[in-house]
Order: sequence, then C-alpha cells, then structure tokens
Amino acid sequence: MRIETQRESERLGAVQIHGLQKVYELDSGEHYGYDDSYNNSVIQRISSEALYEKQKQMAIVVPVKNERLKLIEGVLVGIPSPCQIIVVSNSPRGPVDRFEMEKDAIENFCRFTNKRVTVVHQKDVGIAKAIELAGYTELLDDKGLVRSGKAEGMIMGTLLAKWLGKKYLGFVDSDNYFPGAVHEYVQEYAAGFVMHDTDNTFVRISWHSKPKIMENSLFFAKWGRSSVHSNNALNRLLAHYTGYETEVVKTGNAGEHALTVDLALNIEYAAGYAVETHHFINLLEMYSGILDETEPTAFRDKITICQIESRNPHLHESKGDDHVEDMIDASLSVIYNSPLCPELLKRELASEKARRLKVEETESFDKVKVYGNLNTLNIGVFLENCEKALGNAKVELSV
Amino acid sequence: MRIETQRESERLGAVQIHGLQKVYELDSGEHYGYDDSYNNSVIQRISSEALYEKQKQMAIVVPVKNERLKLIEGVLVGIPSPCQIIVVSNSPRGPVDRFEMEKDAIENFCRFTNKRVTVVHQKDVGIAKAIELAGYTELLDDKGLVRSGKAEGMIMGTLLAKWLGKKYLGFVDSDNYFPGAVHEYVQEYAAGFVMHDTDNTFVRISWHSKPKIMENSLFFAKWGRSSVHSNNALNRLLAHYTGYETEVVKTGNAGEHALTVDLALNIEYAAGYAVETHHFINLLEMYSGILDETEPTAFRDKITICQIESRNPHLHESKGDDHVEDMIDASLSVIYNSPLCPELLKRELASEKARRLKVEETESFDKVKVYGNLNTLNIGVFLENCEKALGNAKVELSV
Repeated sequence: MRIETQRESERLGAVQIHGLQKVYELDSGEHYGYDDSYNNSVIQRISSEALYEKQKQMAIVVPVKNERLKLIEGVLVGIPSPCQIIVVSNSPRGPVDRFEMEKDAIENFCRFTNKRVTVVHQKDVGIAKAIELAGYTELLDDKGLVRSGKAEGMIMGTLLAKWLGKKYLGFVDSDNYFPGAVHEYVQEYAAGFVMHDTDNTFVRISWHSKPKIMENSLFFAKWGRSSVHSNNALNRLLAHYTGYETEVVKTGNAGEHALTVDLALNIEYAAGYAVETHHFINLLEMYSGILDETEPTAFRDKITICQIESRNPHLHESKGDDHVEDMIDASLSVIYNSPLCPELLKRELASEKARRLKVEETESFDKVKVYGNLNTLNIGVFLENCEKALGNAKVELSV
Repeated sequence: MRIETQRESERLGAVQIHGLQKVYELDSGEHYGYDDSYNNSVIQRISSEALYEKQKQMAIVVPVKNERLKLIEGVLVGIPSPCQIIVVSNSPRGPVDRFEMEKDAIENFCRFTNKRVTVVHQKDVGIAKAIELAGYTELLDDKGLVRSGKAEGMIMGTLLAKWLGKKYLGFVDSDNYFPGAVHEYVQEYAAGFVMHDTDNTFVRISWHSKPKIMENSLFFAKWGRSSVHSNNALNRLLAHYTGYETEVVKTGNAGEHALTVDLALNIEYAAGYAVETHHFINLLEMYSGILDETEPTAFRDKITICQIESRNPHLHESKGDDHVEDMIDASLSVIYNSPLCPELLKRELASEKARRLKVEETESFDKVKVYGNLNTLNIGVFLENCEKALGNAKVELSV
C-alpha cells in the first residue's frame, strides 16, 4: 500500500487527530517494513509483509443479522488470510434456525479455505453468563442475555477479540457487495497500525464515494447525508477549544474502523447509530484534558486517531430507507449531550435541528443509551468464564 | 490468493482448456511458492510472493480513449506495484490535446507513486514507423499510422510489452469504477501463470457478475448478454470435435485476459468486438491439429487456457447502449467464418441469428477484419526501431 504521509493534525491534550490520508496504491509489493528509498516526503510505502504482520494480530468482527449467505461469503473472501474472523450473529433461531445455517455455511467455508473463524450468536448463554459474572450487567436484557443491536454485537466482538488474544480489532459490515473493498478496508486498518504503532491507535475509514442510483444511472456521492452533520459538529467542537476553525474530522460516522484492543477495552460504546460518533466524543472526554473529571492516568499515553480515505466506492446492500434523520439525530445527540459541548454549539445544533425538521421551536436531543466504559468489566473474570463456555469452539487453524 | 484446483478440462491437440476456477480468498498471505500443507485436493493457496514474482515480469496494457482522468487514476491505483503499465491512448490531440493532459496526469501520478508506466499515443509516428519497417503494414492506415480501434491498441501494447522485456501481458480496461476489482484481475492473471508456468499460457477472467440498474435497484446479472452466445457456440464447436457435449468455455468474450508475451506474438488479433473470441478460435485453428494447414512446429508445446471467475462484480462506466447485437454478431462471425466451423453449426448459427433479428431468411455473418499472426512481423527490426523512437521514454523506476 502506498499512502499519503500524515501532514496536518489537531491535538487536544493526549488526543491527536490526523487529517485524512489518501491512498495512492492498493498493493505496493513486498519487502519488509519501511525503506526510505521508496518514500518521499509526501507518500509512504508500506510493504505487504508489514501489513500481514499487523493482520496476524488482528481480529475482524463481522456483525450479521439475516444477511444473505452469498453476501457474507463475499465478505469472508475479501478478509486477508492472516486475520482472525469473529462473526457475531443476531439472526433468528426460530421458526427456522437461520443462525445454525449461517454457522454451518461460514464454518464450512472457513475450514475449506483454512481461515480462522469464530461464529457466535449474540444471545449465546455462555458468553452472557461470562459478561454477567464480570459485572457488566448493563449489556444484558431482562433474560440475562446480551441485548439486541449492532453496537451490542460490537461490544461482544470486542470482548471475544481479547479472549482470542488479539492486539488489534477491526469492524467490517456483512453486506458489502465488493470483496475487493473489504480487502482494502482491512489493508488500511493494518496500514494505520503500521504508521502508528502504539497501544492506543484508532483507524477510521472515509469512503471514497457511495454509489447511488439516480434516475436510472449511478451517481457517486462523496458525502454521506448524515456524516456531513456529525463531521461538521465535531469540527466546530474542536474549533471551540483550539480557537482555530478546522475541517480535520472526516470520519465522525465511520462504520469501517479499527482500533487496538487495549483502547477498545477502555472506551464507551453508545447504542444504535451513535456508536461511531460517540467513540470520537468519548476519547475527547477522557483524554483531551478539558474535563475536570479526567482520570489522572489518562495522560500517560497519546491517543492517535488516523483517518484514511478508501479508494473503492462503498456499495452495500440497500435495505430501503436508511433512516437518515435518525442517524443524524443519534450522532448529533452524543455531541450535544456531552459535557464537552459548549452552550453556543448546543444552541446551534438545536436550531439546525429545528430547521431540518421544519419546526419553529428549537429542538433538544434525546440522550441515547451509552454503555459504561469497558474497563468497568472485570476482564479476568470474563476471560475465565468465556474460556469455559467457548473453549472448545476456539478454532486455531495452522497458517 | 486461494483458488479452486483445476479439475475438468477439454483437450484438442495441443490446446488444453481448463474449466472455470473459483476464487476462495483474495489474499492468502505470504510465504513463497506452494506449500502442500496449505493445499487440499480442492483448493490451492498461492502466496503473495509467488504472485509478485510473476507480476515483476508482467506488463499491464490499459487502452484509453477519452476516459475521465479520475477513472484512469483509480485503475492505476489498483494495479499492483511490481507490474509495468503500458497506457495506449487514442484520445484526440486537437483542438484540445487530451492525450497530452492524460500523459501529464498519468506520468505525474506514477512518478509520485514510483510506478513504472509507459504512455504512448496510438498514432505515435515512431512506433508506426517501427511497425512498418518490421513489415506488418496491415496494421497501418493510409497515413502510415496505426489504425484506430481497441484491438489495434492492444496489438501496439503487445509489441511494447515485448520491447520492455516482459514475459507476461495482461489487459485491463480504463473505465472500471473499482480499483479493488482491477487489483483482483491482475492477481488472478498472476495466479494463472503460477499454476501454469509455461510459455504458452492464456488466462481469461469470467466476471462474477455485472451489476445492472433495473427499476431503480441493482440486479447482479451473472451472464453477459453477448457472452452467452459466444460461449455456447464455442462449446458446440468443441463438442463437434470431441464427441462430447461440454460447457467448459465460460470466457469466450473475456475482455479481462492475460497471456505470455510469447503466445501473444504468435496469435492473430481480430478487429473490433471479435478480438477475444477470435483468440480462442485462432488457438484452436493453430494448435488443435484439426486443420491440415497446421504448422508442423505447432505441436511442440502445450497451449493452456486457464479460466478464473473473479469475485468482485464488474462495474464499469456505462456509455449508453452497448451495441450488444454488434458484439454478438462480431464474436459469432469469427466462429462462423473459421475453417474449423462445421456446416451444421454454421446453419444453426445462421438460423439463430435470423431468430434474433426476427427475419425469415437465415442470415450469414460478414467476415470481420483479422490481422495476420504477429509472428509475420519481424520482431528484431521492430525492437530496434522502437528503441530508436521511444528509448528515452523508457521509464525504469527503482522498485
């Protein structure tokens, strides 16, 4: 991979946010590590070996719900071989046991192709028990099982990545039509970790474009309808504290993202559409030094947010209406309701919301559910009980 | 890359046509060469190093005509770094010199990213002169320049690949929206040459699917409207000689294909839409041993045709009507007019054509222009004069 060298960045306390980096070559060949002779001041080359090195320590979490098996298979085809795959499915178990079908198909495909995969159901009793014993009961519903929802599946995937001993964790959607795009995302996750080889690196992908069907032809939209709003609000929030207007944030809603497992286990996950934007906000809350309640340990390490612009358009299955307004609302809500959010920005967000909804009065934002920082979960207890529940399902194929 | 082991194949004389091979993993990681422990009887693993090894000896020819620079750049992004790129452009040189714009943009992009590229215009005087001196005047128009047309650009690219000292040659269209799909094609070319490490290997890609916009949503069509006809006719032709019905040919119209430069310099190119189908027919004419006029040297080597099904859908720029009927007509014409074509198949093709056109009488097929076998060109003379004309344009960047 050949990728633009990071140039501009914004820094608040321990949080460093790098500007969007463009990719210039998907595959720049072999030869280990950096070799300065291939790099100039603008573009750096990352060899395939360096990417594989990171991928060997990486789990890719694929949340699934009622996806067509053909689409899931394509996603698996695109994930590079060195990665450990974790499929967290919340597909129905009755009247037809769709999960069992998925599990069979996925495990068979992976055995066949020597890929490492762990397939679990989001309502797995053993994992829920392990989470309960570890004291993180807020993730559980009244039946004592993990709540439904993609964010909840992501939390489960995060915990399983830790159980599987991985250092890095990436998320990939199961409805991508282009295996080559999935491949690119995972290569870019690895590239981010090569460029920022720390325990607290967050890699977020901004899609090159998203093809939409308009009047019977394709239009390659650059900006998602909801990401415009969250990026803009996050940038205004940063500007408030730095005193300089900025456009540095381009991935406020990045569904395609990866982070070190250490960081993932020390961050809050919001429910629903807010999860990605809240990650951003939560890092600023914890590590920017702005809030009084920042923990004293928080400044020990630098937190690096790396944003990469993918080259493939993002073409995923369209399931009808995208609930754009709900997405905008959820992601702005976590900004609005953060103690970081200055009064002026609150008023602006509220009056912009009123304009979007075409109502007279300014509108507030309902709080979205936010799960407590995963560091409140007793990871030792979780791992011990997870091992009891899933130990025999641990698939470690030879690479 | 992990790919299905070839199982079925048809053999006619020296020509071996392998059945379509499915890809199971785009990126199966590193470690040189084959390692049997990773292979089972059904799927084989090809390491990244083995693919790069082939790509170092590969030229990728990208024919361009008035393509948007953004699209061309995306295609360049997708071509793996070890490959030599040859852009043959037939864009207009006036009133605005579009070629000069392309050349500037492409060369700048490649210098920036350390990619090796040679950009030539199809009407380049020096190359035309070299072709003329080498005695292959049929490629030239009345001004003594290379004729217009994609096939003619492909011939020019073939000769330049030889001049650049490459062993393998692949073709990639310049209007592909997905750099990841381009990357996959080139990886598959290399995989074909790894699996069939001979001087006479032909790799042809069958698209996984081609997304079409239907009633404002995407439909992933499996079979191209024109490839159905050419595959069917080629299979019936094979069946006539083997006595067994077959479906082995899936890539009669494969625009995405690669072959050894040795083979490319010993084959006929048809003009227009017929070029891909004619390659198939011409190999059978020369090496199947069916025709009397087969040259005695023809049986020395085995000719291997390897067909690979890509995993990414093929989404390219739609330039309005595809002239499907012309494409069908051209590709069937080279089958119909081949001395190999039995009378029965001719009658069937003619009456099917009448049905398609909804006319009463059976219809014949006009002969398409076919350029003579490139072995009639004096390659030594060509190379010498090409060097004189382009020597200082030979870009050999460090890798």
